[in-house]
Amino acid sequence: GPLKEVLFFPSPQVCIEHLFTSHMRFPCACPLPHGVKTSFSRLMEHLLSTRTSLDLCIFSFSNMELSRAIFLLHKQGVIIRVVVDREYMSITGSQIGALRKAGINVRHEMSSAVHMHHKFALVDGRKLISGSLNWTLTGVQSNKENVIVTEEPELVRPYQLEFLKLWEASDPA
Amino acid sequence: GPLKEVLFFPSPQVCIEHLFTSHMRFPCACPLPHGVKTSFSRLMEHLLSTRTSLDLCIFSFSNMELSRAIFLLHKQGVIIRVVVDREYMSITGSQIGALRKAGINVRHEMSSAVHMHHKFALVDGRKLISGSLNWTLTGVQSNKENVIVTEEPELVRPYQLEFLKLWEASDPA
Ligand SMILES: [Zn+2]
Ligand SMILES: [Zn+2]
Repeated sequence: GPLKEVLFFPSPQVCIEHLFTSHMRFPCACPLPHGVKTSFSRLMEHLLSTRTSLDLCIFSFSNMELSRAIFLLHKQGVIIRVVVDREYMSITGSQIGALRKAGINVRHEMSSAVHMHHKFALVDGRKLISGSLNWTLTGVQSNKENVIVTEEPELVRPYQLEFLKLWEASDPA
Repeated sequence: GPLKEVLFFPSPQVCIEHLFTSHMRFPCACPLPHGVKTSFSRLMEHLLSTRTSLDLCIFSFSNMELSRAIFLLHKQGVIIRVVVDREYMSITGSQIGALRKAGINVRHEMSSAVHMHHKFALVDGRKLISGSLNWTLTGVQSNKENVIVTEEPELVRPYQLEFLKLWEASDPA
């Protein structure tokens, strides 16, 4: 059947440099453990597998490794659309300002009384990544969190429609 | 294939009294709309379908209608286990104290530096309800939220194992 995967967090901190640099000339010299697969490295692999389009609906986005992945995809020509919460997009450490400066399309929830509390991503319109995990450092490294990754059309399709609805109803940031 | 459903929130406020009282002698006289199906009424139907066991991992639980459902299931003899966040279990409006007073088994995350940020339920060990939705009034009625409901074994099984791990590792509240 179609891909169905569950990732649990917290995820131990390991080196994921090889995910960004496909041909490393020298072994990485950083102090983190190398060659270890974790929930986070798996999540990054799924995101970095994007070829054409990435749609993100993320309440809180401050994780530097995740934003590095988004910047890399943007550089590779992937069409990226981001819907964020109005209040959380400008808190300390938020990566949303940097995404906008890089030319990535960001929109925010219009009402300040309502939170855009989703945390999901759609990779190439056919792979859903969704769960309790915000894209923060605490989310990844400290909290008890879960993420479902699936290509099951019955689950992916409703999120695609919901994304388009939110995208149309949100303000350009 | 096995059940796969996605519910999106916010959900409009409608009367769900019929879900609690199977044989109502008189039509309900409350001012809310009647006979309307919503994401929230569907979520309640899934929860109230529990026959033997309900395992909950919920970061924030203050919604009175959801706690009414839990109390009803408890009265019907359903074995209920609840894992909650240590910090959020005692905030204003939390239903956790009331659950414990009713004799429901509640445990909390041991470390205060770490948040138990899950929001999932396992109905009879075979139906998973998981997403971004906390069991609060804002979550249900105001926020943009999502919940996946599925009986897909590949998705349910990992959550069952995770629940048992958290249950064993948590303190009786
Ligand atoms: Zn390294
Ligand atoms: Zn009524």
